[in-house]
Amino acid sequence: MKTATLFLIPNLISDTEINSVIPIIIKDKVIDLKFFIVENIREARRYLKKLNNEIDINSITFFELNQHTKENEISDFLYEAEKGNNFGLISDAGLPCIADPGNVIVKLAHEKNIKVVPLVGPSSIFLALMASGLNGQNFAFNGYIPIEKNDRIKKIKLLEQKSVKEKQSQIFMDTPYRNNKLLADLINTLNFDTLLCIAFDISGENEFIVTRHIFEWKKNKPDLNKKPCIFIV
Amino acid sequence: MKTATLFLIPNLISDTEINSVIPIIIKDKVIDLKFFIVENIREARRYLKKLNNEIDINSITFFELNQHTKENEISDFLYEAEKGNNFGLISDAGLPCIADPGNVIVKLAHEKNIKVVPLVGPSSIFLALMASGLNGQNFAFNGYIPIEKNDRIKKIKLLEQKSVKEKQSQIFMDTPYRNNKLLADLINTLNFDTLLCIAFDISGENEFIVTRHIFEWKKNKPDLNKKPCIFIV
Repeated sequence: MKTATLFLIPNLISDTEINSVIPIIIKDKVIDLKFFIVENIREARRYLKKLNNEIDINSITFFELNQHTKENEISDFLYEAEKGNNFGLISDAGLPCIADPGNVIVKLAHEKNIKVVPLVGPSSIFLALMASGLNGQNFAFNGYIPIEKNDRIKKIKLLEQKSVKEKQSQIFMDTPYRNNKLLADLINTLNFDTLLCIAFDISGENEFIVTRHIFEWKKNKPDLNKKPCIFIV
Repeated sequence: MKTATLFLIPNLISDTEINSVIPIIIKDKVIDLKFFIVENIREARRYLKKLNNEIDINSITFFELNQHTKENEISDFLYEAEKGNNFGLISDAGLPCIADPGNVIVKLAHEKNIKVVPLVGPSSIFLALMASGLNGQNFAFNGYIPIEKNDRIKKIKLLEQKSVKEKQSQIFMDTPYRNNKLLADLINTLNFDTLLCIAFDISGENEFIVTRHIFEWKKNKPDLNKKPCIFIV
């Protein structure tokens, strides 16, 4: 029996041209796939159509993987892959399995000896890190910062400490509507001469990736409200 | 005066078709650039020619940034950018400033108010992480593992601890000719049921990205000698 492959298909991270962030081969790859695991079916259909308008959307079987998916459903998703059918995994934005829970499917694929092939695309985390000027030879992505005031301040201090002592760049984020609040907390908590990178609309028309000392950000605060941001210290 | 832009231009990570890993827009971007900062001029010329054979290599000024570059030279590199000329930064493989020291130039660019634009391309670290099935919501890249026996074993134990306690995937590497030795050390040091991802020739013809428990790797060791690998626990 033919061994199936699970292709990890990148999605856009801004309102931009497909050709500026997605290698052209991916357009051809998706045409051959009849099974997709996606975060949201409507979004995925729209994205696939944009990726390649010759795709026959109605011949595709979609499985939805998000916070509503039950654990026992997940193990059934790859049933068709075990029969030899190739699959695609798409997240709502950026690279599947980076800053999203898609890795449960990939873990399952390894257990079932299904080949996993990652495809190249945009990631706000890695693009921000590249362009930050901060250390890219040792870094950590910490996901979302805590909401509760004390935990939040403690975490900010811990990240700054790690960045200095372990020489490890610390990447983190918050829910977009709290970003101005986070920037205020960072300015009040971090040392005045700590370098902070703020990045938003990465790969988009209003791309902003700027690294400044805290004393500089204090004098000139950008409005981050409702803008998905990446922060790096 | 026109503000200059420093474009971070991805390079290949395997012997593969440009179109399978580099978005097509990058071919057009490089045509307009007359100044490049690169790790190795000969390699960079060859890559640019491959990227777009209409490029006029002889009209380009190259600056070499590697272990032989003196610190005072680096600050002169962006002189032409300060006059308004756009620059490209290319590393020998993958994304500039990720697992390479290119960030010194980017840091300087931020200081001089030069815009930094990161472009999408392949990274063995992120492709391995995506396809590993391990946690992509919290992870750290630790660079090279220590060479000296005691430090090495201590580091391996520390990485496993961090992976479990902080639920943070730990990515690391070694010099390719030591990879079989590293695999032996990992098998002897990590818990038998720890999951280890081994990845090599990522995006290449013989791509290998496999996650197994230590007890499984022990029974079936791949030959990693001289293959650049990414390891994740």
